[in-house]
Amino acid sequence: MSISTAPPIRRTELPSLSARATAIPPSTIRKLVDVANAAKSRGVHVYHLNIGQPDVPTPPVFFETLRAFKEPVLSYGHSKGHPGLLKAWSEYYGRIGLDVEPSQIQITTGGSEAILYALTLVADPGDNVIVSEPFYTNYRSLAVAAGVVLRGVPAEAQLGYPLPARRLIEDAIDERTRAIMICSPNNPTGTVLTRDEISTVVQIAAQHRLFVISDEVYREFCYEGGHTSIWQFPQVASQAIIVDSISKRFSACGARIGALVSRNADVIDGALRLGQSRLCPATLEQVAAIPLMALDANYYAQLAAEYQGRRDLMCERLSAMPGVAFRKPAGAFYLMATLPVDDADDFCRWMLTDFEHERQTVMMAPAAGFYMTPGAGRREVRIAYVLIQAELDKAMTVLEAGLSAYPGRV
Amino acid sequence: MSISTAPPIRRTELPSLSARATAIPPSTIRKLVDVANAAKSRGVHVYHLNIGQPDVPTPPVFFETLRAFKEPVLSYGHSKGHPGLLKAWSEYYGRIGLDVEPSQIQITTGGSEAILYALTLVADPGDNVIVSEPFYTNYRSLAVAAGVVLRGVPAEAQLGYPLPARRLIEDAIDERTRAIMICSPNNPTGTVLTRDEISTVVQIAAQHRLFVISDEVYREFCYEGGHTSIWQFPQVASQAIIVDSISKRFSACGARIGALVSRNADVIDGALRLGQSRLCPATLEQVAAIPLMALDANYYAQLAAEYQGRRDLMCERLSAMPGVAFRKPAGAFYLMATLPVDDADDFCRWMLTDFEHERQTVMMAPAAGFYMTPGAGRREVRIAYVLIQAELDKAMTVLEAGLSAYPGRV
Repeated sequence: MSISTAPPIRRTELPSLSARATAIPPSTIRKLVDVANAAKSRGVHVYHLNIGQPDVPTPPVFFETLRAFKEPVLSYGHSKGHPGLLKAWSEYYGRIGLDVEPSQIQITTGGSEAILYALTLVADPGDNVIVSEPFYTNYRSLAVAAGVVLRGVPAEAQLGYPLPARRLIEDAIDERTRAIMICSPNNPTGTVLTRDEISTVVQIAAQHRLFVISDEVYREFCYEGGHTSIWQFPQVASQAIIVDSISKRFSACGARIGALVSRNADVIDGALRLGQSRLCPATLEQVAAIPLMALDANYYAQLAAEYQGRRDLMCERLSAMPGVAFRKPAGAFYLMATLPVDDADDFCRWMLTDFEHERQTVMMAPAAGFYMTPGAGRREVRIAYVLIQAELDKAMTVLEAGLSAYPGRV
Repeated sequence: MSISTAPPIRRTELPSLSARATAIPPSTIRKLVDVANAAKSRGVHVYHLNIGQPDVPTPPVFFETLRAFKEPVLSYGHSKGHPGLLKAWSEYYGRIGLDVEPSQIQITTGGSEAILYALTLVADPGDNVIVSEPFYTNYRSLAVAAGVVLRGVPAEAQLGYPLPARRLIEDAIDERTRAIMICSPNNPTGTVLTRDEISTVVQIAAQHRLFVISDEVYREFCYEGGHTSIWQFPQVASQAIIVDSISKRFSACGARIGALVSRNADVIDGALRLGQSRLCPATLEQVAAIPLMALDANYYAQLAAEYQGRRDLMCERLSAMPGVAFRKPAGAFYLMATLPVDDADDFCRWMLTDFEHERQTVMMAPAAGFYMTPGAGRREVRIAYVLIQAELDKAMTVLEAGLSAYPGRV
């Protein structure tokens, strides 16, 4: 039959979105994008301290390699990842003291896919994963999409967001807990977990037979000493899953190249089967990432020095602002500050809608979106120091002026 | 405490993979890759008719646009997709008679992500989605990963795999059914659903209040008339979700650029929130895909003519092989054939391990992996006509010789 002769359709209501789709939170900063754009259209310059988008140039060898690509057909790559990139990534790990075989790596479409795969591999719908809060907001979205329950255990702001007490973590574990998720250096807090703290996680995971999902994408951004990787703990050799990414360390966020790393053959086989379901990560960026993985220690030293300088400047400026509380973070390029305002969400919006200082303002991420606990982080913001020092310095002057002028100051 | 002083850890067993991770099937052809490589290392040429990887060159404008990219930082793009690509994709739809606004499009990392998003948006863990079988094998992997149950309704091989009878589809619907999934032109069967068949799907969806997920990535590969899109049926305006991709029509499988398209604002908002959870699709390929979307009807006409010629050659050669049964498919670049063998899986393997004809052999995909029903497709293979005619012709000669020589012939 054709459409025109089809019988009249009777229906009482349309199908609705799934419950999980409804529960996926919008981006923490999405609601501020429109007001930021409105500020720009009024001629106000907006310093973007709201997202982890570095301004450091992507190493030129990335683009040179892309331009040299000469195959006539942009074909599928291996589902596990480009063999050359697997080898280069393994060699990169070797240079930083982690003994990782190419076979223990699954290349993913960004660290995001590695997180999604890790959650899917360890947890069935309704199972839960423990994470200290505040945490990277997309953990929640990816967990909800995968049907996995995240259980936040609060880290203390006043102490600089260290690992929560072992007792608190263990209190959150139940029979459906499948993993502990850590992120060091941390987004959003900048905290670098000490070897002792990671050792505590290892002991809990070993005792309770949990996986440890360790997000180490900011590994190279440590300013007070070396980085401790979950890979260094043989007690959880089969339980450790590293989430990695080229985005931050090579300023290549738009490449969408990450990795999931594990010594557990079941995990790696499962990750490959997940990888086969989406065929492959982008072919060109994998090829172009190979020479990035070969960059030497000088590159990372320069990178860390650049961000350390920014951090120090930020902390100096924030320290001089009355009522602003924070602890100097040891890594990543984020800082959580408690502001002398009644509501950081309102303040961040006000900065964009009602305030300007010499035709400039600042955009920050209100911290509530990094917490599970309702009401938590109400006076905190996450500040990403992803601008050169001269720009950061001006942004801090604008923030200081904004805090002075804000009617909701407490 | 340090590692060395940690108390001894007591544990009885390691944590295991999630049940869903264990249930994700391996790639249908994965188990044959090793034997294919072994054949090659013996000096045997393998004709790859096993995967949908076209040999047609990617339009050069794609690579030219990539090489012209001059920004120093490869930064995140919008989570919804590059505004220029959204506009170009909308204009492409306009040229083929589909009125789609840029706001109704979510750019995805390949059609694969669009499928995953569609399943996640319409179904909660434990809900089910109806699909006719055989079907694209990754539907199953993506559904299992998302906790969604696929319900296969058999399409009749002898009739050329048309839409199963309405009664059979409706019998499969229960209170947890959330969507009907269709794929036209079809992978793996090459079937193009008629307007009447899609109209039947529309009526079922309207009556039972189901979403329709319509995979239209092979839209331009129709050889017996035009393509019917779910977008053309106003009765399911809010229920229709199109899955799309640039991979096949532009021979750009390695770009990983696809789209999810819907008039339903809730679906599009949910897709954006899912998109935010992974930040963005690859920036460079989105930029390079913009001029691809502007290619005119001549490009598609040439493309279809090329594949139609291949199809006709394939069908002519297969028709001459005793005991081989198939129906000439109207679209895509796949064909399902029933072979005169006891087990197509064994036969495909034997072709790679034990057979050669003038130092050549053929790799095909055994069809069992495209079915849910155990034992179904046991004597069928999927053949992808992704080689130029001269190569296809030689491959058919090799297949014919293999069928004659096969000890398991029936």
